[in-house]
Amino acid sequence: MPSQALPGFRDFYPDEFLLRAHIFRVWREVAARYGFEEYDGPPLEPLELYTAKSGPEIAGQLYGFVDKGGREVSLRPEMTPTLARMVAARANGLRKPIRWFSVPQLFRYERHQRGRLREHFQLNCDLIGEPGPEGDAELIALAVDIMRAFGLTERDVRVRVSDRRVLNALLLGGGVTEAQLPAAYAAVDKLERSRREELTAQLAAGGIDAAAADGVFETAAIRGAPALAAALEGVPGGAEAGAPLRRTLAALDAMGLGGFVDVDLTIVRGLAYYTGTVFELFDASRTLRAICGGGRYDNLLLSLGGVDLPALGFGMGDVVLGELLKERGLVPSGTASIDVFVAAITGDDVPHVLALAHELRDAGLRTEYALNLQAVGKQLKLADARNARIAVVIGPDDRARGEVMVKDLAAKQQRAVPRAAVVAELQTGIDTRPGT
Amino acid sequence: MPSQALPGFRDFYPDEFLLRAHIFRVWREVAARYGFEEYDGPPLEPLELYTAKSGPEIAGQLYGFVDKGGREVSLRPEMTPTLARMVAARANGLRKPIRWFSVPQLFRYERHQRGRLREHFQLNCDLIGEPGPEGDAELIALAVDIMRAFGLTERDVRVRVSDRRVLNALLLGGGVTEAQLPAAYAAVDKLERSRREELTAQLAAGGIDAAAADGVFETAAIRGAPALAAALEGVPGGAEAGAPLRRTLAALDAMGLGGFVDVDLTIVRGLAYYTGTVFELFDASRTLRAICGGGRYDNLLLSLGGVDLPALGFGMGDVVLGELLKERGLVPSGTASIDVFVAAITGDDVPHVLALAHELRDAGLRTEYALNLQAVGKQLKLADARNARIAVVIGPDDRARGEVMVKDLAAKQQRAVPRAAVVAELQTGIDTRPGT
Repeated sequence: MPSQALPGFRDFYPDEFLLRAHIFRVWREVAARYGFEEYDGPPLEPLELYTAKSGPEIAGQLYGFVDKGGREVSLRPEMTPTLARMVAARANGLRKPIRWFSVPQLFRYERHQRGRLREHFQLNCDLIGEPGPEGDAELIALAVDIMRAFGLTERDVRVRVSDRRVLNALLLGGGVTEAQLPAAYAAVDKLERSRREELTAQLAAGGIDAAAADGVFETAAIRGAPALAAALEGVPGGAEAGAPLRRTLAALDAMGLGGFVDVDLTIVRGLAYYTGTVFELFDASRTLRAICGGGRYDNLLLSLGGVDLPALGFGMGDVVLGELLKERGLVPSGTASIDVFVAAITGDDVPHVLALAHELRDAGLRTEYALNLQAVGKQLKLADARNARIAVVIGPDDRARGEVMVKDLAAKQQRAVPRAAVVAELQTGIDTRPGT
Repeated sequence: MPSQALPGFRDFYPDEFLLRAHIFRVWREVAARYGFEEYDGPPLEPLELYTAKSGPEIAGQLYGFVDKGGREVSLRPEMTPTLARMVAARANGLRKPIRWFSVPQLFRYERHQRGRLREHFQLNCDLIGEPGPEGDAELIALAVDIMRAFGLTERDVRVRVSDRRVLNALLLGGGVTEAQLPAAYAAVDKLERSRREELTAQLAAGGIDAAAADGVFETAAIRGAPALAAALEGVPGGAEAGAPLRRTLAALDAMGLGGFVDVDLTIVRGLAYYTGTVFELFDASRTLRAICGGGRYDNLLLSLGGVDLPALGFGMGDVVLGELLKERGLVPSGTASIDVFVAAITGDDVPHVLALAHELRDAGLRTEYALNLQAVGKQLKLADARNARIAVVIGPDDRARGEVMVKDLAAKQQRAVPRAAVVAELQTGIDTRPGT
């Protein structure tokens, strides 16, 4: 039998599953607070669903194959095409704005990507049918509140926000032509990872002269809303282009979240895809990859599914987030624990152990007992190994008095409790330590 | 763009996702009460993991393919081989008994199975390292308590229990030889779906004469523990063979769950796989397929993973269970709802709406507001459409008095509440209807 998972796939042993469950729980809780409803689609889709959005060259990065029915299919690399397909199929019947989220497992398979994960989980939140900048603020706020719910502050995590319309206005105002915009965007996108001379050469190759190239670098260097507003004043249509982002930032301020946000025009993201606001969340020290990325894609649903609805969304993966939470010590304790362990002193006590254990479980308490009769001391060791808070010991003498012995395993104290009262007492969390 | 999911795959729109989420939540809650810890493995595994357990012929039923690296792989059709692989890899470091559960999505692809689902979700619970019959009772009790947590009673669901050891003793005692056991088991398995003459012919073809065949039918017709005990008294080794099942049933009685259980030797399940107790859960009227099936497979971990540990487990799918819950009206309401909708009277009120909405979300309340300014009446219609319990209206006059208007949308009543008090009041669920 193969002894390992396929390369790039993770096993989640229970101690590792705890972090994943914690991440999923927080994602779901905060999304629900924002009125988002969960949906899901198939992990396998027609290959064409992805090539229709990203072009045939995407197939080289996908976990694709031909199924037994001769269909070209792929494990899903992203959720947006499935979302577009599902929304298009029921567009008229769905109340707008649509607030949907999903927690899909996503898959990629490029050859020669040794050591890299080929799957991850990703929270996808999308807001469909709302064209205004308050929608952008709503979505960014959701991403920020997820960070806060994990215990991360504005000193831990930063939101970098840009806007396609703003960058266009500034680049065009700085002498770049419409036709040269893709070359300019490519340079802005590479700014953090490349030397300036290299980029100048690339810009020149794209037909952008030295003066206009300086304009590109100046634009990309703008940080903060006031500097951006000043720059926009100097270009045609700048005030209009800057209005949506200004309103988005004002709304985030009104929610008390402005402190998380940096205006930063070097955030580019997919050029063919986004039409307005784009944003990414990073750890403040920028030692990790992006935690989350998203933006407004007002034309995508029309081009993919034939439904003309404005939309915006983000994706947040479990891997970088998990690394950050571990780094900051914000992960739940790695030890699973139970509430109560029930022990028998003699074989005659076993049916009573089973009955009480079942009552405790019915009361919602995580309960275990030894599945084969053994000495009480050994049973209590099992209770310790399972991190039980309480042990209940049932023996013939206590039973004759209608009692059981309740042991607080942390405090190392015990007292007799009436059998008829013990479930309610443990369930309501009444202090089980002896009175004196 | 393709407008539909692949054949056999489900889309889960939010109203459909609610039932799935309900099923998963109950599965996880009850498993946790039994001290079970959640794990997961990859949805894609080496094909060999499945052929090692079930033989090369299984490949025809699998969602298998050759990946870009030339590996023969398969979407997982079941969880047990992954479990065996994971346990084998860390067998020494894991505390026994291992109580693990998982909620994988599983996949099958037989050609010519038009109209059938090719994926489903399945709760898998396994108890590893415990040879005794109290382990069997523990696992059956877990399955039954899941049914009870869904609101199903012993009038809705029945557990049919058999035991390989019991059936062997009775068949051998009735004149069937060791070599003929597989033929006898095959006949018992088909008893409910085939005519007796057909089965007699099959048994004869397997070398089982008419007298022994009658014994097979008599054995299969045994129902209930007393009849079984009587039958076992009449065969060599019967008492010993019957002891584990008797103890399992006694333990279930002690837990108060005996009323769910029927001894029924026609439950066969995989012959190569199970070594002791086997059980299945069915709806009491038997109009649906099995809800759950499992049993003891003491040799499998050794043969698959090289780790000699006794084990037992069950699988419970989401499809039949979901059908039964729908049939009995035990599904959660299909309408998603929010707690609070916050509305603005004028544009000047919008920042105050944003601030309050964010405070309410921080307090854990599912909160929405209109993402673009519109008449209050229209905003309240949105609140209704989202099934909001409460609407909070913020206007200039109330603001001047430091108040907001809280509307109970069901009771159609409203009253002014101090802005400073409204979050705490709504959070603690204080009655928001007017005093008189």
